[in-house]
This record gives sequence, C-alpha cells and structure tokens, in this order.
Amino acid sequence: MTPTENWTIKESEFPKENYSHKETVFTIGNGYFSSRGGFEEGYPDENATTFVHGVFNDVPVYKTELVNFPTWYAICVNFEDEVFNLSSGKILAYDRDLNMANGLLTRRVTWQSPQGRQATIQFERFMNMANLHHGALRFCIDDIRFEGQVSIQAAIPGVVSNERYRHWRHINQGRYGENSSFLELETMETGIRAGISQAVHVNADNGCQCAYWDAHWMPTQTYLMDIKPGDRIEGTKHCVIYTSRDVDQPGSVALNEAVSLSDIGFDQSLQENQKVWTSLWDNSNITIEGDDCADRALRYNLFQILVAAPRHDDTISIGAKTLSGYGYRGHVFWDTEIFILPFLIFTQPKIAKNLLMYRYHTLPGARAKAKEQGFEGAMFAWESAATGEEVTPKWVTGPEGELIRVWCGDIEQHITADVVYAIKQYWQATGDDAFMKNFGAEIVFSAAQFYASRLEWQPDTESYHIRNVIGPDEYHEHVDNNAFTNLMGKWVLEFSEEVKDWLKTESSRLYTALLKKLNLNEQVLDLWPEMASKITLHVGQDGVIEQFEGYFDLAFKDQGTLEPRDQSLQSIFGVEGVQQYQFIKQPDVVMALYLLRGWFDRQQIIENMAFYTPRTDLSFGSSLGPSIQATMLARYGDVEEAKALFLSTLLTDLENNRGNTPDGIHAASAGAVWQVTVFGFAGLSLNEGKPYVHPRLPQGWERVGFKVHWKNREIPFDINQKYAL
Amino acid sequence: MTPTENWTIKESEFPKENYSHKETVFTIGNGYFSSRGGFEEGYPDENATTFVHGVFNDVPVYKTELVNFPTWYAICVNFEDEVFNLSSGKILAYDRDLNMANGLLTRRVTWQSPQGRQATIQFERFMNMANLHHGALRFCIDDIRFEGQVSIQAAIPGVVSNERYRHWRHINQGRYGENSSFLELETMETGIRAGISQAVHVNADNGCQCAYWDAHWMPTQTYLMDIKPGDRIEGTKHCVIYTSRDVDQPGSVALNEAVSLSDIGFDQSLQENQKVWTSLWDNSNITIEGDDCADRALRYNLFQILVAAPRHDDTISIGAKTLSGYGYRGHVFWDTEIFILPFLIFTQPKIAKNLLMYRYHTLPGARAKAKEQGFEGAMFAWESAATGEEVTPKWVTGPEGELIRVWCGDIEQHITADVVYAIKQYWQATGDDAFMKNFGAEIVFSAAQFYASRLEWQPDTESYHIRNVIGPDEYHEHVDNNAFTNLMGKWVLEFSEEVKDWLKTESSRLYTALLKKLNLNEQVLDLWPEMASKITLHVGQDGVIEQFEGYFDLAFKDQGTLEPRDQSLQSIFGVEGVQQYQFIKQPDVVMALYLLRGWFDRQQIIENMAFYTPRTDLSFGSSLGPSIQATMLARYGDVEEAKALFLSTLLTDLENNRGNTPDGIHAASAGAVWQVTVFGFAGLSLNEGKPYVHPRLPQGWERVGFKVHWKNREIPFDINQKYAL
Repeated sequence: MTPTENWTIKESEFPKENYSHKETVFTIGNGYFSSRGGFEEGYPDENATTFVHGVFNDVPVYKTELVNFPTWYAICVNFEDEVFNLSSGKILAYDRDLNMANGLLTRRVTWQSPQGRQATIQFERFMNMANLHHGALRFCIDDIRFEGQVSIQAAIPGVVSNERYRHWRHINQGRYGENSSFLELETMETGIRAGISQAVHVNADNGCQCAYWDAHWMPTQTYLMDIKPGDRIEGTKHCVIYTSRDVDQPGSVALNEAVSLSDIGFDQSLQENQKVWTSLWDNSNITIEGDDCADRALRYNLFQILVAAPRHDDTISIGAKTLSGYGYRGHVFWDTEIFILPFLIFTQPKIAKNLLMYRYHTLPGARAKAKEQGFEGAMFAWESAATGEEVTPKWVTGPEGELIRVWCGDIEQHITADVVYAIKQYWQATGDDAFMKNFGAEIVFSAAQFYASRLEWQPDTESYHIRNVIGPDEYHEHVDNNAFTNLMGKWVLEFSEEVKDWLKTESSRLYTALLKKLNLNEQVLDLWPEMASKITLHVGQDGVIEQFEGYFDLAFKDQGTLEPRDQSLQSIFGVEGVQQYQFIKQPDVVMALYLLRGWFDRQQIIENMAFYTPRTDLSFGSSLGPSIQATMLARYGDVEEAKALFLSTLLTDLENNRGNTPDGIHAASAGAVWQVTVFGFAGLSLNEGKPYVHPRLPQGWERVGFKVHWKNREIPFDINQKYAL
Repeated sequence: MTPTENWTIKESEFPKENYSHKETVFTIGNGYFSSRGGFEEGYPDENATTFVHGVFNDVPVYKTELVNFPTWYAICVNFEDEVFNLSSGKILAYDRDLNMANGLLTRRVTWQSPQGRQATIQFERFMNMANLHHGALRFCIDDIRFEGQVSIQAAIPGVVSNERYRHWRHINQGRYGENSSFLELETMETGIRAGISQAVHVNADNGCQCAYWDAHWMPTQTYLMDIKPGDRIEGTKHCVIYTSRDVDQPGSVALNEAVSLSDIGFDQSLQENQKVWTSLWDNSNITIEGDDCADRALRYNLFQILVAAPRHDDTISIGAKTLSGYGYRGHVFWDTEIFILPFLIFTQPKIAKNLLMYRYHTLPGARAKAKEQGFEGAMFAWESAATGEEVTPKWVTGPEGELIRVWCGDIEQHITADVVYAIKQYWQATGDDAFMKNFGAEIVFSAAQFYASRLEWQPDTESYHIRNVIGPDEYHEHVDNNAFTNLMGKWVLEFSEEVKDWLKTESSRLYTALLKKLNLNEQVLDLWPEMASKITLHVGQDGVIEQFEGYFDLAFKDQGTLEPRDQSLQSIFGVEGVQQYQFIKQPDVVMALYLLRGWFDRQQIIENMAFYTPRTDLSFGSSLGPSIQATMLARYGDVEEAKALFLSTLLTDLENNRGNTPDGIHAASAGAVWQVTVFGFAGLSLNEGKPYVHPRLPQGWERVGFKVHWKNREIPFDINQKYAL
C-alpha cells in the first residue's frame, strides 16, 4: 500500500445495496457546512443532506433540528431523452475516491444508456476550507461514443425537506446574466434566511446554448449541445451559501460571491483549500507505521471531525452525528467535551476554544434549566442546540409504536461536570488564562453552584448523596449515588477551589465582579471543597466501586451465553428488563477512573476493570464505550486486546459495524480514537506540568507519530517499538 | 336581494386577516376531487389543498391522511419584473364570487404594481361535475394601463406537502407539444400513483412566445408577450388528475385528456358541468322564502356536501371535514351516517348508497377490530379511512405539549349502530331491496353479532349492561351504561329480527348462505330480540333518562355563570375536571330521543329536553350538537328559539363561529341543517309508510320548498305559513 492510499477512501462499485451507509461515509465539509455523499444525479430514495452549522428549526418530538439545505452539487445530464442515472443502463466502470488530504470527492463512471449511448463522466467536488461558503463541482464528459444532443440542467433544487418534514418557506429567487442564479429561503419558525447561489459554466467542443428557467423553488441553468464521438464536455458549478446568521442579505451576497468564485476557477480554489487542509493535518495527523488499515481508518475518523469542526464561529458546537445525518438531529451531548474535545484541544486549540465558548454562550439556557428544576447555578442541557435550552425529546416511539419516556433530559446530570472537565483540560494544555478569566471561571463557578445545590445531606451517614440520576450507563435509570456522577460532581467542587485561588491572585477585581454577577460570596465558595469531601462513594472490600446504590445486588449474567447477537442487551431484555441485571451500556465506573486517573492507584483501576469489563455491552451498547475501554486496556490491560478493540472501533462507520451509520458519523467514537492512540497506546500523560509518553505499542506497529499542542507550542512525538515499554 | 344573490357567496375585500377561513369557505369540488379557495398566484402562508377521494398515505400519530395534490390552478403573472401579488402594490378593485348553481369561482381584481403598472385580472375556475378528472381555469387580463412585457408561468407545482409533511415521490414528468405537460408522483407508503397534467393556451393581441421548462418536480409552460395600454390577454389552463385507483397509467391518461379538454374549451365544459349541477339541485335544493340569509346559507351548507359527495365510487366516504381541510385528516366518523346521510338518502339516494357500500367494503376492518377486542361480528372503526382499520390516534398533543390519550378508537362504540341506522333509513326511503339482500343484511347481522357479544349479563338485576364506553357526550369517558349506546344497541338487535324475517321470506337461499358466511345459526338470531329487551336503562321518576350510571350524582353548574366565554367547557375545566360535572358536549339522551322518536311519547321527550338543554355545551362543545338541538326544538320546543339556533348553525363556516373553520368545513353540521329544516321545521315523518309533514315555521318564513325521494319518486313539498300549524 502506498502512502497516498492511506490518505484515500475508495469505492469501486456503485452502492446499490448500502447506499445510505456510503452516503454517510463520503460526507465532506469545511466546518461551516457539510454534505453527505449523495450523487450529483440524485436517486429517489437517497437521503442527501447539506447542513449548515447553527441553522436549526423547530420540529415535533425532537424540538429542534438542523435544517437540510438544497443539494448544492445536484446536476442532471441527459443523452438525448435519456437521463444519466446508474439505476438504468449499464455501468462499465466505476470508482469513487475521497481524498482525505484535501477533502476532494471524485467519481468516475463509464455508463451505457439503455439505448446504448456511452460516455465516461467524472465528477469532482469539495467544500472549500479557504472560503467557508463555497462548494465547488467540476464535471467532465469524455470518451463519448455516440452522436446527438446532450442537455445539462444545473438547478438549485429548493424541493428539500428533513426526511419528510419541510422547514423552508420561499422568499425570493432570480438570476444574474446567463449563468448564475440564486434562491432565498427562510426557516419557518426560527426565521433564518438562507441564500443559495450557483454560477455554472459549460464548455463543449461545438459550443453550447444556454438558457435560464426561473421555475418557482427551482432556479435552473440549462445547457444544450450537439456532440459526436470523441467530443468532450467540461463544466463547473460553483455554489455559495450564506445565511442571515452571517450577513443581512444572504441571497445577493451569495449570488455575487458565486460569480466571483467562478472567475477564480475550480483549480485555484482547490489549491487554496488544499493549503488549509495541509496546515490542519500538519497538527492533527497521526501516522501508524506498520498497520495500514489502522493508519488509514484512524485518519478517516479524524477527517470526519475536522470537516465538522467550526473554525469560524464560537456559538455552535459539534453534534453527536457531526453534520452528517439525521441521527440526534444535530444536538450536542457530552460526546463533544469528553470524546471529541481532547483531539481538538491538543491539535486545534482554536477550534476547541470555539466549542467551549459555545457552552459559555448557552449559560442562560443552563441557568434556566437549573432554576426550573429548583437548583442553583447552571445545569447544562443533556441535548443542546442553538440556545442551550434542553432539547432532549421527552418521549420517543419504540419499534412497536409504543411511547418510551426518555429521562436523560431530566436526570442525566453529569454533563455539567463534563463541560468543566473539558475547560480544565483546555486551560491546562493551552495556558489560555484570558479564556479562563473571562469565560471559563464563570462556567466553573456556575457548575459548582449547581452541584452544591444538587447535593442532598444525609444526617445518619453524615454524607452528601445525589439521588435519582442516570449515569453514563443508561441501561439503569433513576439510580441513587451513581459513582461517575458523584465523583465528577466532587471533582468540580474541588476544582472550583483551584480556580478561585488562581483568579483571586490573578485579578481580584475580576474575581469580585464574577462573584457579584453570580450572586455568590466567598463563604459559599469556601464550603464547596468541604462538601466535596463528604460526597458518598461506595467501595467494596475488593476495591471495586459500586456503580450506584444496589448495583451489586443485581443479577449477573454471562454475556457469552447470549452470543451471537446483533442487538443491544437493552433490546434483548427490554427497557425495564435490563435494569434487573448488572449489564451496563458503556463504561461508567471505568469512565470515572479514566477521567480521574490521578485519584486512583493502578491496582484499584485493574481490579475495577476486571470486574466491569465482562458486564459491559461493548458490541451493541453505546458506541462511546469501546474507545474508552480500549484506552484503558492499552494502559492497564492487554495491549493486543486493546488493539483489536481499537481496530473495530476505527471501522465503526467505514464498515457500518453497528448498523446505524446511515444516521450519521459516530462523532464521539471518531474523536475518541485519537485518545486511544495518544492517551492509550502512546500513554501521554500531563500530570507533571508537561506532556510525556509511556508507550505500549501492539505488535506490528513500527512507529506512531503525532503532535501535541502544549502552551503555544506543537510538540512532536515519534514513538517506535524500541522506545515503547 | 335577488334570487341570484341567494345562489352566490361573495367576498368584496382581499382577506388579508382571515385568509385561511376564506380558503375553507371558497372550497369547490366535484365529488372526485376538491380544492380549497386558495389564490392562483399563491401566498407564502396559504394552506392550499387539493384532495382526491381515497388517496391516503401513512402519517405519524394520525396513522393515515388524505394527501395534498399539486395546486392545479396555480398561475404566475408578471408585469415586467413585478410579480402579480396582492400583498404588494395597490388593490383598486376586488370581488370574489362563488356561484353555487354551477360551482364556478370567479375573482376580478384591479391591481397597481409597486412600480405603477396597472391592469384588471379575472380568474374563473371550476371542477367539472361532468368530467370528474377535470379542473378548468380561465384568466383574462384587460384594462391594461402600461406598456411592456408580460410573462405568464403555468406550472404543475410538485412542491407540495400536507402542511409540512411530504407524501410524494417523483416518478416522471414530460410534455406534449408546446402547451401541455404532466407530472407523475407516487405516495411514499401506499404507493398510489397520480398523474397531474395541464394544457395551457394564452392569447394576446400581439401574439406570444411560449416555451416549456422541464424543471424537476415543476413542469412549467411559459408565455412571453409585449403589450400596450388597451391590449387584452386571455388564457386557459385545463388540468386533469388521474390516479392508479382509476387507471394503470395515470400520467399519460391525464396528459391525453387535458389536451382533448382544451380542444373542447372552457365554455363548453362549463355548460356540461352546469347541466349536472342543475340536475343535482333539482332534487337537493331547499328554498326558504322570506328569509334570504337562511335561504342562502342553507344552500351553501348543502353545496359543500354536494362538492364532496362521491357519485362515482363506492369505496370511499365523506370525512368529518369533507375534502376541505386537514382537520381529522380525511377520516370518516358517525358524522356521515347520522348527520350527512339523511340529506343524501332523501335527495341523492345513489350517492347515499355509495357511502353505505363504503361501510360494506370496510367490513373486514370492522371484523378485525371486533376480534382484536375479543368480540364477535363487526365493530366499525370510530375513525375510518381507506381500509376500515381503526385510525383514531391513540395520543394527541395538548396545548402545553402534554400527551392526551384519545379513547374514542377503543370505546366509543355506538358507531356500529349508527351505520345500521343509516342502512335502515336508506332502505325505508328507497325500497332498495337488492342492496338490503346483498349487502345491508350482512352489515345488520354483523352489527347485531357485535352488540350481542358486547353485552355483559348482570345476574343480580337480571339485565344486560354495556360498561366502559364513551357516548356522543365525549366529556365523559369510561362510563357504564351510556343511554345512547344501550338504546342504539337495543335498536340494532331488534331491527335484526325485522331483517331476518324479511330476508327469510324474500330469499331463504340468501338467508341461509348469509348465516353460513357469518358463522351464525337461527337459534342465535332468535336470542337477539330477547337480549335487546333486557338491556338496562335507568329512568328517573320524572321520566328523565340518566345519561349513564352515576350521571345524576355529578355536580350541576349554571353555564350562565361562565359567560361570556370563547372556549369549550372542557377547555375551561380540563379533560379530567369536566368529568366531575353534568356538563355535556352535545345531546346524548336527546340524540337517542331524536333517532328513536317512535319509542318515546311527546311528554317524555319534552321533559328530557328541559333537563338536558341547560347542561349541553351548545356554543363551544361539539359542532354536531346545535343542529340536533334545533331539530328537536322545532318539533317539541320553541320554534323561534329553534330558528335562532338554526341560523347560527347555518353560519358555522361562513362566519367561522367556532374559530376552527380553517381546518375545514364542519361536514356533519353542513349535512344536518337539512334535517333541521325537513325533520324539524317541516316535521317530515315517515312512520306511516310514506312521508308527510307537520310543519311549524318560524315567523317571517313565507314558504319552504324541497323535494323528498321516496321509493323511486321525488315528492315535492311546498309549505307556507298558512299550511303550517
């Protein structure tokens, strides 16, 4: 395998059977907008989407969702009266490549129409990292084996919905000259206007006739040409999207920019795009020599985070399915802070800051949620979107049409600590004291305020309890004293002391102002570390932490007796049934041990892993589980076992291991594989004031190379087997 | 007021404020399809719908719904670059008329564009009663006061959804010659294909240039012409809709027919349409001389039933909102049999038969429902659509987003008796023994089978009970021995004996075959009348029938103390709260007295009305209530009070009295006003083998004229004050 091949995702057959899986796999984007890997000619049952960060609209049940935009890359090619479409005729050759080095998606297909007209068509498209509003398409028809008329229609296809639900109203449309047009739409409830424009150019050997159809909702540029065997047709479609989140007049701004971009041309835009990609990869790339599959698949996972990561806007974040599908409707979970952010903190700290600022901007929503539930401070939404208001659906429909109550929005309360954890990590890695002073400290104190108000004093045991929560293991609902939640709450209260002491020293003016703003006083802050020390945690005699009160009393069952299976343990036993067992959806105690690894000794970690691993539904539980499990195994367990789990995690989306890749990229997993490599196999540690590594590389891995950002420097690591322990 | 005016519904101002109300009011149709009164030029927040009978598709919550078709009458007119649209520029004159004599909807508007271009545009459209697939539009632009270019686009606008939800996938589109095109779509779940075609012709004084835009989802004929002051532009758009319920190739059939209809022309089609309307009105019209308001409004109500009444198909029925809006999603309730059918039975018996045959065709669904609930025979769906399967939503979302369980689909069980009641009435009026033999008897026996299995024997009282139902008064759920349900069940069991005796005599072969088919034997049938006689009914000492067990013990509250109000008593007290009171949503005991009036003496009826009237939420309860109340008042109460209630009922939709006319015509109310007039004021009675009248006309009504179908004859009645008692 050549190095280039490790930078490419290939497809050599038209995916008739697994179309929607491949649509997700070939998602591209530039951090402003992103499109699934649909085909330019469109198919009736496709699930083509283009999402623009921050463009949400109201929807039943799920409250708010990212809005699907018109498919900017759509183009219709006709050989006489036959429409180019791979579901009819014969496919004589087919290749699709995603170039991860520059985000260029190329398809080359030789097709014979049902009536025998043959040609080769190549489509190339990318979403420009150097101009966030720009999507460029180039097509070329050659090796033409017939004589006749070819017509091409390039539309801005306004007929678009989220699956079946429409979000847009029509505002305006029009054209500029012969070759450019725009469509302006507005989301029905949130009133966000969007301008989508195109500038189209087609060149054929014998010239071509162009016309504009001002069809309502569907401005269309059309091109008509007579061709003969051996002729060649080339064309470009430059599209631009602006919304009223960006500018006042998105329609005309988009139209003007499309015209000027088409003057600049496809190749030059691609070069500029390539430059940005090169600089992104310079910091973010990981090389695994000796394991091409891992090397390429790991790069693919990081690629999918980079195409979704907002470099331009600090009021948005990355959803649980990036911008690549309808799963979770674009909502943001702890997946971002705990699973994705470490990758960005240590390789793209500016993007990481944007994501943390998103949480800062959503503090009003978090405060409202705390108040509504009778608590103080800020309680971040379990599912968060444009405003930080809680947008977890209360009810979802089960497979039999029954209604299932979703409790996470009410009682999955570790999310607030997770946000603080990411802030600490960012601060530690970057030393960005300005962020901490102006924004971070406010989040930390507001979170501590929340947890302090959330604790319930138990006089008989003289300890604090947190009752009625859901931990990371969502198989068990309404549990008391979930170890993860208690430990993370404790950690927040302790960390608040560190922030307090630092801020007071750094700027007593800011400190005083912040306390005033939050209606706090120093006496209250001083109570927090003491409260932290009295939060209950039940540890068994063997050092195993009990996941929640009563967990040890539940039934144990050997997962092996249920193999082979293709569904989660919750699906097998039911929402109620699974609660009777010790089965867990993902690491929960082990997750706490991972995040707070400085608090526990190696022996205790190993004992807890030995206890919880056989109880964890790693194959069909949460997709968040395997990466954490693999990281811990690489550090404390069998490194070959870690490698096997790592490899299957890397292929989650490329091979649709969990069957739900059609809903979008598993963003947490895609981000967390960076942690498996860097915190797991390389054993990166930060506790002594600077990063150093304790590698444990599996067999066959000759070299692992990556860079880590540390206080405004990029520190390269180059680990080989010899160096590894 | 001239006689013509009593055949016209007028609007003299562009309805900016009550757009969606007027959309419902100006609904037209021809029994095959129907369109709300949207405007040809379209408005962003319009709720334009075109529904075709029987074309349902799956939808969340409501299970199935009528599918909105492309707006066939859409047309876009541009004066230079200014789009004709009444929300900009100046409206110098405006008139819209609905001619109830022939279903022609005409609008004439003089408009000055924002840049000062002025002209008068007239639109006329109708849906052809003589060719059910045909919708015709004619437009004329004259009194032109500017010079320049006019362009007109006539599209088949495939961008259509049910409110926000999309039902269609694109199948095909194309054109024929310069002026005609078609679009073929398919419903996503039910797979019904629809072909929608147009043939467009535009004539201008200086000729015009036409072109076809084959825009995806939006085939568009375009016309471009240069005009000067004094010029005149005329055009027609003939549209045709076929579905795969009608023909195999709906697209091409529709295209061919549009072409030939445009050859026939607008005027000739209108004449043919007029002929059918004349014959419909010949039997269905009612004249009220001396009260123009009542005369016109009554005609409007009957008009709305006639445009929705299927003359061509016996597998469909009329939904609770006809084909005029999204309310109740096109589902069919008891509204059809009890409120609408008497009008059709006595004036359009062939249509009445189609509607009863619809119930026959849905027997499999009714049998499945009975079986599923553990009963025998046939239990008709409370809400019924294409198949007769129960399609009442189980849950709906309340105003605060809370989920409300809807129990009607489970336990509102009088519907089956209501169907039988309509069969009896149809049979009695028409003497259609063939229907009764081949279809009616099967429904009657299947219904009796159901009620017999539904009865619960109570040994201590030696009587049958029906527990846990909802009666017509839906304010009270889960009641025992609802008088209406018990009486109607009793009536079915008794009527089954009459049918048995008749069928045995008429054709013992058919009788035996039917018993075999239904797995019945004569011993079982013989038990039914005996069971009927033992069904419990609680009557108070004063002759007042208790609506259900325990009703008399509920709290009484004077409705007057709650006035003025603009919402139902259920909205005021809540779903749970209202159950604690004697308030009722609509006549329940009085409804039984109305339907089974032969069973009760005048005094008992009067006493029950005196008791229940003050307890009935006539203003904001069910829209089904006032017409029954008015009928009973006209017969047994104060005829002037009856008139007042009748008049407000007639204006339910014309004046949007209940605030929900935007959801569609109140079909039950629209049909039942015929009963108020004929059974109420005219006092039509059928009990002595032929119809005769006992009129009680209110003051000012000089003459009431109508015809009643009786055993293949149309009997005219001409009642004047002198004749009335």
